[in-house]
Amino acid sequence: MKVSALLTSVGINIALCVVLLSLYSILRKQPGNFSVYFGRKLARERKRQKEGHFSFERFVPSPSWIVKAWGYTEDEILAIAGLDAVVFLRILIFSIQIFSVASFICILFVLPVNYLGQDGPHLHIPSENLDVFSIANVKKGSHWLWVHCVALYIISGFACALLYVQYRSIARMRLSHLAASPPNPSHFTILVRSIPKSTEKSLSESVMSFFSNYHASTYLSHQMIYRTGKVQKIMKNAENMYKKFVQIEHVGIDQTHGHHMAKCGLCGSISNSIQLRCRQVDIDIDKSSLEHEDSNTQKECTAAFVFFKNRYAAVVASKVLQTSNPMLWVTDLAPESRDVYWSNLWIPYEQLWMRRIAILIASIVFMFLFFPPVTFVQGLSELEQLQQMFPFLRKLLRTTFVTQVVTGYLPSVILMLFLYIVPPTMMLFSSIEGPISYSARKKSACCKVLYFTIWNVFFANVFTGSIISQINAISVPKDIPNQLAKAVPRQATFFITYVLTSGWASLSSEIVQLFPLAFNLIKKHIFRTKVDADSIPSFPYHTEVPRVVLFGLIGFVCSILAPLILPFLLVYFSLGYIVYKNQIVNVYCSKYETWGQMWPVVHNTIIFSLVLAQIIALGVFGIRDSPVASGFTIPLVIITLLFNTYCRRRFYPIFKNVSAQDVINMDREDEQMGRVEAILMELQKAYCQFPQKEEIALSSDGETDCNKNDGNEKKEECPVQVNLK
Amino acid sequence: MKVSALLTSVGINIALCVVLLSLYSILRKQPGNFSVYFGRKLARERKRQKEGHFSFERFVPSPSWIVKAWGYTEDEILAIAGLDAVVFLRILIFSIQIFSVASFICILFVLPVNYLGQDGPHLHIPSENLDVFSIANVKKGSHWLWVHCVALYIISGFACALLYVQYRSIARMRLSHLAASPPNPSHFTILVRSIPKSTEKSLSESVMSFFSNYHASTYLSHQMIYRTGKVQKIMKNAENMYKKFVQIEHVGIDQTHGHHMAKCGLCGSISNSIQLRCRQVDIDIDKSSLEHEDSNTQKECTAAFVFFKNRYAAVVASKVLQTSNPMLWVTDLAPESRDVYWSNLWIPYEQLWMRRIAILIASIVFMFLFFPPVTFVQGLSELEQLQQMFPFLRKLLRTTFVTQVVTGYLPSVILMLFLYIVPPTMMLFSSIEGPISYSARKKSACCKVLYFTIWNVFFANVFTGSIISQINAISVPKDIPNQLAKAVPRQATFFITYVLTSGWASLSSEIVQLFPLAFNLIKKHIFRTKVDADSIPSFPYHTEVPRVVLFGLIGFVCSILAPLILPFLLVYFSLGYIVYKNQIVNVYCSKYETWGQMWPVVHNTIIFSLVLAQIIALGVFGIRDSPVASGFTIPLVIITLLFNTYCRRRFYPIFKNVSAQDVINMDREDEQMGRVEAILMELQKAYCQFPQKEEIALSSDGETDCNKNDGNEKKEECPVQVNLK
Repeated sequence: MKVSALLTSVGINIALCVVLLSLYSILRKQPGNFSVYFGRKLARERKRQKEGHFSFERFVPSPSWIVKAWGYTEDEILAIAGLDAVVFLRILIFSIQIFSVASFICILFVLPVNYLGQDGPHLHIPSENLDVFSIANVKKGSHWLWVHCVALYIISGFACALLYVQYRSIARMRLSHLAASPPNPSHFTILVRSIPKSTEKSLSESVMSFFSNYHASTYLSHQMIYRTGKVQKIMKNAENMYKKFVQIEHVGIDQTHGHHMAKCGLCGSISNSIQLRCRQVDIDIDKSSLEHEDSNTQKECTAAFVFFKNRYAAVVASKVLQTSNPMLWVTDLAPESRDVYWSNLWIPYEQLWMRRIAILIASIVFMFLFFPPVTFVQGLSELEQLQQMFPFLRKLLRTTFVTQVVTGYLPSVILMLFLYIVPPTMMLFSSIEGPISYSARKKSACCKVLYFTIWNVFFANVFTGSIISQINAISVPKDIPNQLAKAVPRQATFFITYVLTSGWASLSSEIVQLFPLAFNLIKKHIFRTKVDADSIPSFPYHTEVPRVVLFGLIGFVCSILAPLILPFLLVYFSLGYIVYKNQIVNVYCSKYETWGQMWPVVHNTIIFSLVLAQIIALGVFGIRDSPVASGFTIPLVIITLLFNTYCRRRFYPIFKNVSAQDVINMDREDEQMGRVEAILMELQKAYCQFPQKEEIALSSDGETDCNKNDGNEKKEECPVQVNLK
Repeated sequence: MKVSALLTSVGINIALCVVLLSLYSILRKQPGNFSVYFGRKLARERKRQKEGHFSFERFVPSPSWIVKAWGYTEDEILAIAGLDAVVFLRILIFSIQIFSVASFICILFVLPVNYLGQDGPHLHIPSENLDVFSIANVKKGSHWLWVHCVALYIISGFACALLYVQYRSIARMRLSHLAASPPNPSHFTILVRSIPKSTEKSLSESVMSFFSNYHASTYLSHQMIYRTGKVQKIMKNAENMYKKFVQIEHVGIDQTHGHHMAKCGLCGSISNSIQLRCRQVDIDIDKSSLEHEDSNTQKECTAAFVFFKNRYAAVVASKVLQTSNPMLWVTDLAPESRDVYWSNLWIPYEQLWMRRIAILIASIVFMFLFFPPVTFVQGLSELEQLQQMFPFLRKLLRTTFVTQVVTGYLPSVILMLFLYIVPPTMMLFSSIEGPISYSARKKSACCKVLYFTIWNVFFANVFTGSIISQINAISVPKDIPNQLAKAVPRQATFFITYVLTSGWASLSSEIVQLFPLAFNLIKKHIFRTKVDADSIPSFPYHTEVPRVVLFGLIGFVCSILAPLILPFLLVYFSLGYIVYKNQIVNVYCSKYETWGQMWPVVHNTIIFSLVLAQIIALGVFGIRDSPVASGFTIPLVIITLLFNTYCRRRFYPIFKNVSAQDVINMDREDEQMGRVEAILMELQKAYCQFPQKEEIALSSDGETDCNKNDGNEKKEECPVQVNLK
């Protein structure tokens, strides 16, 4: 690709971004889109959205949102959206920091070395090939490769220092926020699975006798988990249907206030609230009879929540092997009550490892099934191949502009579209795996998407795009550094366009929220349903973390090989910082909190990227006949790996365990403040498997679900019995 | 190699074995060798060895020892030598069982299929090449390969079933013996490392304040660990010197009883006991002054033993993360007092991970440094090469017998000699790694020797012996099954001779104890020192487990490819069972007990062997154009791996953790029997870092060390202060 083609691509993308950002600044001012762009406010303030009056200002694009988003401090974000959001923004901050340093060094020192690598005259820059700016242009055995080696040392050193600072600071934040958070029922609770069945006593009695025998002084009570059978599922469907009706009914009630025309969007007849009320009673009767039936069919699972009198006891019970059969009485700290993935709790513990292996195999198969589309995409960047496949395109492709678009833009757009189906699939896989909490599911999906993206976007593109057939490259491990070293500089052009399209464009589409916007319009104008605060999405860490981290990987790998990519990346990360900050503050409503569990995953991936970059550099130095530079890179790899080992030992346990000192101090504080009684009272109502009945009764008061989750009335009527000791 | 060459090798080895076993049955009857062949009895019964009177029977070989060894039941072995010895014998029992089944199937069904694989006339059997009996003789695309596939299924199925039974039974034994064992101080004790230094208080005060704060109800006391400085080392050397003198002195005292001539073996002058007594006083004075000096130089380490009031509290304290900095207050269950590796306890905890990585790298380097000798050994089996290297051998090698010896015998003897230096090196590596107990050191050395042996004996031989150069074979992973499939049948001959030489001969030399015998003779007749019960060796698991397991691996891999090896292996394992049983009962004196910790290592290696055998079979079926048989082998690999995953989940935690239920039951039993007070009293004297002073004082009474280790007087005078709460 030539510089002019790159500039075309940059032009298209800048235009697209400006258009979309301007569009956003207009759309966000329309009151009809309040639910799309201010979901969090909607959920928090329970503000009924109002039709604003027409004003000219509403249709003028303005950058005020950028200023607003920029203005939020980290403490404010922490208060608004929790630690997970802060950790996510920290990834962007880290990327901005390290790639500023990298850009400075590589543009100032490495780029000139690359450009002036070959003797002889240079073309006019726009018609210069992009390869001139990559390390491929440096002569073999050149002494200037030292510049690259030193640059690699500086970048790696800075990256490790910044990583250490971030890891330490996030670990501290996690600790201080766990310590400062109000008493959380999940700290007092463990989840026991694989309770042995006995013919003499019920499962519940088994739990009680076991814990009052071996944890006598601290055991408080327990709550069995029931298997939700088919009846339960039918009920759930009925409820959902019913909810829909209640919403329509509210539109009907609103009618008396004169705001809306209460027409059923599809048929146009006026809905009758009294009719609906009757229906509600019908469904309630159905429900109670179903529930009666249900209590017989509801089967106790071999799992239970066990409550303890203090946090330390719960931690101890979760850490110590309970019996000499490790497959029985398996204990774990319970997830937060809002985070419990109830429908997975009935899964027999013995099944879990098989599920995990099955999903592992399925994920690998899925990863390899994705190869054909990637290969096709790469075919596009080699036009001759495409012309052979579709001869009728030959004429069209003669136009320079079309060629530039096809080679510079189309491949990554197609790849991006293909990648859209990955996160839902991985989420499904993670659900089947059997995690006990939504956050664990999301984390697992995040890891899967991450591996998938790195493999299919980075490696597959590198190998299929280069001349070496991918099978040969994979099958000779010791040659991999060399093969990568040959292939990566060649693919640098693709990665630059990938940053422009997948990166910049994805940020713009993220902020405009195209899909929710369309969905909102359809819902409002065709179905005429009210906006549901329940449907406010939580932040999609499982798609965004892998994306941001992937760009980091591309950045590290290309930094010294093709430094031209760095400014584009820097723009991406800076824009991303503003966009995501805005989205976190305004759009998404986090339903659960993992207290920064995502960081170790990110840290490991960044280390992987660094080591990969170093190994590729090693190969490149080897190919360019600079054994000294190669030799000096090997200690760098070892030092980076040692640094990672240190970090894993120093910080990782903080994200996996709770320390005795901390929980004992928290317990003591509770005692001093005399709130133990209150905590223990509340504890037994915290986990509620079947809250639907009350929820629906309250729903008819016209309130949304989100609000009631904070109330206590519902919890007190939890239909599941808690077995007091 | 031809059948006749194999028979030569078998003949040599049988003769050697018979000679050595006969020699053993004579030597063991000589009273002078009592300390070599009955070390355990010597240590247990403190029987002074006596010169027996001459009788003719003493010089007639007899098989009575075989009958005796055979007669011991497992319970007796358990009582005599502990669980570790039983586990070791179980490896042999498992091998005998599985290879009986394999021999039955392979000799009856697979061997005829191999032999009749090619059409055409067969030679007279002695001049038939051994390859005729391997799978290499089966025609490509033959339908008879089904026999091999079915045989593989049967062997794998039996192996898994037997492994499961063994794992379950060993886990049960471990649990029941931990529960039934008398109260052990190590169950009440944890080792705390990385105690934070503070300027305000001493380390000992830190420990006390931390544990009486956070484990107030169960903390009993603690004992700091001191760094043994150079002065300590000089002292130790002085003591060793002194001990030698005391021994000579005793010979002097014995003189009055008229048994020995009290001559110094080297110079022949009569030793004067009064002179020696004076010396002893001198050294005692020296020692006390050194100790005085020492108490100033002795530095408190950042490590301590902390004692708890019950077992459960110790387990909890060892499992739970203590503070939010995972590098401080690191807790582990303490090893048994006789098992503590005192000189490693002072190593700062932060150093450990670096040491481990350094040793890992060192071990890998050592493994690869071993390649040249292995290659040389393999060169021997290809005579042409040898003749090229040493032309003067050409004449010699024309003799048939010499050729047969050189190809059939010499290579594995040389390899065996080289392998002798491996275990001490690995033991040294494991010491540097910084384990806290002797048993952990031995286990770690065992794993290292195991990896080393499998790599250098199995893989290196396979790859260097075959035509493919080893570097190519290693660098193409997807071809490895095919390469192995080509190489292993070719190397089957070498493995048969390896079983004969390294296997059979090592058993014979093990039972005759050549080195200790020679050492004993030298000691007795030249240095005239008394036999020291301290020097009775403990069972060398780190050399014997890898050896036995390696033969299992060779057996699994060769079973369907070259079934001729199986009878030789079966003889090895049966002979090994008798020999090791005899040695365990008579020779070795186990100083510590890991309660079967070795089994998970063995289990994993056997699974690895099975999977390796299956993968090689897969390659062989592929090469022989039998895609159906290949296809049917893949599920077998997956099933075997799933089986291993199940076992790891079901049994492995039992070997790593102690269950709450068990320790609480043990605590309650103690309470019911009212022996808690006594246990806690004894607890504080259990761990003694500097017991030498009393030891030496007692040594002068003429008793051996082993006996005193059981006594209490010594412990009561432990010079290290225990800090009571």
